[in-house]
Amino acid sequence: MPLLVMKFGGTSVADLDRIANAAAKVQREVDRGYNVIVIVSAMSGKTNELVGWVEQTSPLYDAREYDAVVASGENVTAGLMALRLQEMGVPARSWQGWQVPINTTSAHGSARFVDIPRANIDAKFAEGMKVAVVAGFQGLSPEGRITTLGRGGSDTTAVAFAAAFGAERCDIYTDVDGVYTTDPRVSSKARKLDKIAFEEMLELASLGAKVLQTRSVELAMRYNVRLRVLSSFEDTDENSGTLVCGEDEIMESKAVSGIAFSRDEAKITLFTIEDRPGVASAIFGPLAEAGVNVDMIVQNISEKDYDEHHSGAVTDMTFSCPINQVARAQKALEDAKAADLIRYDELIIDTDVAKVSVVGIGMRSHAGVAARMFDALAAENINIKVITTSEIKISVLIDRKYMELAVQALHDAFGLEKAA
Amino acid sequence: MPLLVMKFGGTSVADLDRIANAAAKVQREVDRGYNVIVIVSAMSGKTNELVGWVEQTSPLYDAREYDAVVASGENVTAGLMALRLQEMGVPARSWQGWQVPINTTSAHGSARFVDIPRANIDAKFAEGMKVAVVAGFQGLSPEGRITTLGRGGSDTTAVAFAAAFGAERCDIYTDVDGVYTTDPRVSSKARKLDKIAFEEMLELASLGAKVLQTRSVELAMRYNVRLRVLSSFEDTDENSGTLVCGEDEIMESKAVSGIAFSRDEAKITLFTIEDRPGVASAIFGPLAEAGVNVDMIVQNISEKDYDEHHSGAVTDMTFSCPINQVARAQKALEDAKAADLIRYDELIIDTDVAKVSVVGIGMRSHAGVAARMFDALAAENINIKVITTSEIKISVLIDRKYMELAVQALHDAFGLEKAA
Repeated sequence: MPLLVMKFGGTSVADLDRIANAAAKVQREVDRGYNVIVIVSAMSGKTNELVGWVEQTSPLYDAREYDAVVASGENVTAGLMALRLQEMGVPARSWQGWQVPINTTSAHGSARFVDIPRANIDAKFAEGMKVAVVAGFQGLSPEGRITTLGRGGSDTTAVAFAAAFGAERCDIYTDVDGVYTTDPRVSSKARKLDKIAFEEMLELASLGAKVLQTRSVELAMRYNVRLRVLSSFEDTDENSGTLVCGEDEIMESKAVSGIAFSRDEAKITLFTIEDRPGVASAIFGPLAEAGVNVDMIVQNISEKDYDEHHSGAVTDMTFSCPINQVARAQKALEDAKAADLIRYDELIIDTDVAKVSVVGIGMRSHAGVAARMFDALAAENINIKVITTSEIKISVLIDRKYMELAVQALHDAFGLEKAA
Repeated sequence: MPLLVMKFGGTSVADLDRIANAAAKVQREVDRGYNVIVIVSAMSGKTNELVGWVEQTSPLYDAREYDAVVASGENVTAGLMALRLQEMGVPARSWQGWQVPINTTSAHGSARFVDIPRANIDAKFAEGMKVAVVAGFQGLSPEGRITTLGRGGSDTTAVAFAAAFGAERCDIYTDVDGVYTTDPRVSSKARKLDKIAFEEMLELASLGAKVLQTRSVELAMRYNVRLRVLSSFEDTDENSGTLVCGEDEIMESKAVSGIAFSRDEAKITLFTIEDRPGVASAIFGPLAEAGVNVDMIVQNISEKDYDEHHSGAVTDMTFSCPINQVARAQKALEDAKAADLIRYDELIIDTDVAKVSVVGIGMRSHAGVAARMFDALAAENINIKVITTSEIKISVLIDRKYMELAVQALHDAFGLEKAA
């Protein structure tokens, strides 16, 4: 019997009507001949309510008790979904993490899967159960305590079940109808993609396209689980949404698949640092300790040379980080300077920048992508402040006021409004 | 290390402030040198919310899914209570039913205890944990599913833990400060009892004094668990509340300990039935099948004798039942008459009656209790319609409009405003 995993997020099960709507989508797949494992989140708002209670009760809470309290939200949805399916005549039952069991590490609040034994659920499928409704986001530690996987953990649960049970596909039902070439609110020409490669989705997810959690895409890529993102709130069929899959399934071969962006960036430049081995580590060590997520890094040869403070070659160092970490980064660097761990003449902070990235596995085989990107930005008189590249991505830092313009220009330049 | 069980009902853990207040009471017992097992209910209102969702989703719900959903309320409280205790510096952790495990039968919605192995919790006490917070009202079936014990199941859980762990006492914290000689809203002279025997409490509980569930008192009596009922909302010490215990602990020896009453009674009389073996069973069999809870039964010798319909001796039969079952009772009797299973001339229903009972283990050794009761009612011109007696209880059915008067007169007649 072919098997599907279907995952419904918090807004998709926000109330009894939406649970009924989700159950109807499950029933349709059962009618098509699938056994289904449904992964559910808590009804939207419930997890925040439970987290609030925990934090008010104990600000420095015991993570084991946090997990025991917070996981209860998913248990409620799982039971209600199973009841709704039964009411529709579909043989179903709910499973809490410890009942499967979903074995995880003991890292409460951010546990990792150890294994998901199939025996219990397979035995019920063998008895005629058509749908196993599993509470997402949770598991069981070796000590027999309830764990949670961290935010977005229900996506990860879905992918892990698809891998463990050899599912034909893992459908992630959410409040958007798929993955777009860019954010439709920024470019009216944004087009929904029929397919996207795991690697591209990873770059888009980590660049701020908030459709799927990075960790769930990583897991899907590792186990080659075909993921489909589609809407809970529309009629959907076997061609709906966007399929996230291996490159071998992608027939089209555009250079660029999508344009990502992030508004919440800041640029920090240290002027006149020593140009010697070990200086980068002296700068980024304290930043890492301070919990600053450094993203792009560029080091230039400085125009300046000797001066009274420096006995050797000097240079400048520029990096970007999330805008809300700027104060922390500045303090870490000033402290390191005061302790004479690093030297610089001046620290310049620019909080008016944004990052724009073009992403595509086609870059590997298409030459000239960077040149086309820079031409398109130059044609709009947009100055590029920092550039970084990876095998399938080119990112630039620009003035924030040009961000929408840059996205639209690049969307046009790479012809993303048309399918390949 | 001496051990206490403390149980907090829904109103006692209704919000975070009340949970903190309950935790302070637990801490005080820990400071006195006790290890404590705390049994918690769901925050008040939560269970009704969950039940509502289940019933809306599936009117004829699968009881296994009902239990999985509804039990989550207690899990939340258990985690929050453990967190609060930790925050106060008390080593504590929460336990869900399956973690203990609380082994029950598979009778979902009204499961019975099978056993409560001590090993897991004892091991944690041995490691220095002072408080085990256990989610009440739930257990684990032999099939590995979550069960619930039915309403009032948290009281029962508390008593079962006290029995399993040999607790010195089981303290039931609730929204009243103890068990009274009668309802203070009916008699201003009602006095809180320091002690009451299990048997007396059972009679009072089943007669409508809603302090403790009948089943929890039965269990306490069977395992000789000393129960204490006291208030969550007052400062309490080791002498607060009412102790429910074995007769051997009761020094005072009044004839009557308390006066119970029930407004929701109805009286049904069948006139002119045959007076022959088997007729009672012919009447009460159909009533039992119809789910009517018959309470008092009286059969008189009739004044009438032969008539054209009856070939032998005839009599009348009177019984009482809850007022909301009258329609069902009437239909069952009329159907039985139509089917010629029973014969009667007339069926008279009186829905304006109330039941008043005097209860006391002292009745066994004090003569004349019934006479004193009937004298007191006669002095107020209250007519007695039906009388039943047991070893430690005398109940009468009277016109409902005299109920408060009867309770007050009996309270005076047996001197209940004064301690023995």
